[in-house]
Amino acid sequence: MTAGPAAVTASGQEDTRTRLLATALRLFTEHGVEGTSLQMIADALGVTKAAVYYHFKTKDEITGAVAEPGLRELELVVEEASRLRGRNARLDHLLTGFVDIVVRHRTLVALFSRDPGVTRALTASWLDRESFSVRMMEIFAGSEADVTRAIAAHAAITGIALTGGAPQFADLDDETLRAHLLGVGRRLLGGRRG
Amino acid sequence: MTAGPAAVTASGQEDTRTRLLATALRLFTEHGVEGTSLQMIADALGVTKAAVYYHFKTKDEITGAVAEPGLRELELVVEEASRLRGRNARLDHLLTGFVDIVVRHRTLVALFSRDPGVTRALTASWLDRESFSVRMMEIFAGSEADVTRAIAAHAAITGIALTGGAPQFADLDDETLRAHLLGVGRRLLGGRRG
Repeated sequence: MTAGPAAVTASGQEDTRTRLLATALRLFTEHGVEGTSLQMIADALGVTKAAVYYHFKTKDEITGAVAEPGLRELELVVEEASRLRGRNARLDHLLTGFVDIVVRHRTLVALFSRDPGVTRALTASWLDRESFSVRMMEIFAGSEADVTRAIAAHAAITGIALTGGAPQFADLDDETLRAHLLGVGRRLLGGRRG
Repeated sequence: MTAGPAAVTASGQEDTRTRLLATALRLFTEHGVEGTSLQMIADALGVTKAAVYYHFKTKDEITGAVAEPGLRELELVVEEASRLRGRNARLDHLLTGFVDIVVRHRTLVALFSRDPGVTRALTASWLDRESFSVRMMEIFAGSEADVTRAIAAHAAITGIALTGGAPQFADLDDETLRAHLLGVGRRLLGGRRG
């Protein structure tokens, strides 16, 4: 296989975009979203501000793009879970997938839960976020309005996300954190034992 | 008993302060802390901005004062729990007290968990907040560094607070919400059954 100059350029742009998002996430984590400027991102990458502008026009666009992979994975897990038969199978697939995403994207989750700028950017860039959190609640709590289950489901989602992103557990390896967060989810939601 | 003019004035000031804080909380809830100005608070109270300034110099001072009663109650519950003998007794006292405070102050808790301005104001105005959240974690998780317990405790605190303040449960009466949040805490932390 050969790649012409156009392909090389496209792949170079893709690399810059990937590096840009990784750098932005690092700077957001260190300085907060509000404390990070496009100029700081450009400086850290060793490129001009124009090169950053080539990919993203605003910091909100960068914030949205940083969060997008995790949100897409979560959307996929919700889709997969919805297609399974049986409440326990759906619940178990969503819980396992959700915990896994929280653990793998924990830097991002930490940012989410602490920085107002992130929530604002996401609300603008990810309009169906609301509807897929409703679907998560349905799978965890059942579609009947059972208050006990709804409260347990809400506590599980928020407890797992905020604990997975908490700085005091940042040193735990992925496997340990995943096992403990699954334990939290199962104690609150029931479902299969690992 | 008779009250001289000075006492009448002091009590009038106290009333204004109380009304001011109640009005501020209502406006914060409607418009967010960032979307609420001192002028809006003055207008809603039917007083001049100077009258607001007499009590508070900045919006952060108002935010701190709005949150203070809830935080003081929580500090008191932590104190009381610390003095009890036996892990279960301490855990149960703190859990019951924490849930009760979250339920009674749920408007405030909702504001806390959503609005960055609140957290900023509180960090400035309530310097030992950090240390008393450490003491909560110790009572819930035990002072030994047991990861399972520490994660369950963190998930319980965040899950109870964010669920108690969630808009979708705002219509539940206090008693129902309290019972369900206690259930969440007990499933995660163990301790006595109600």
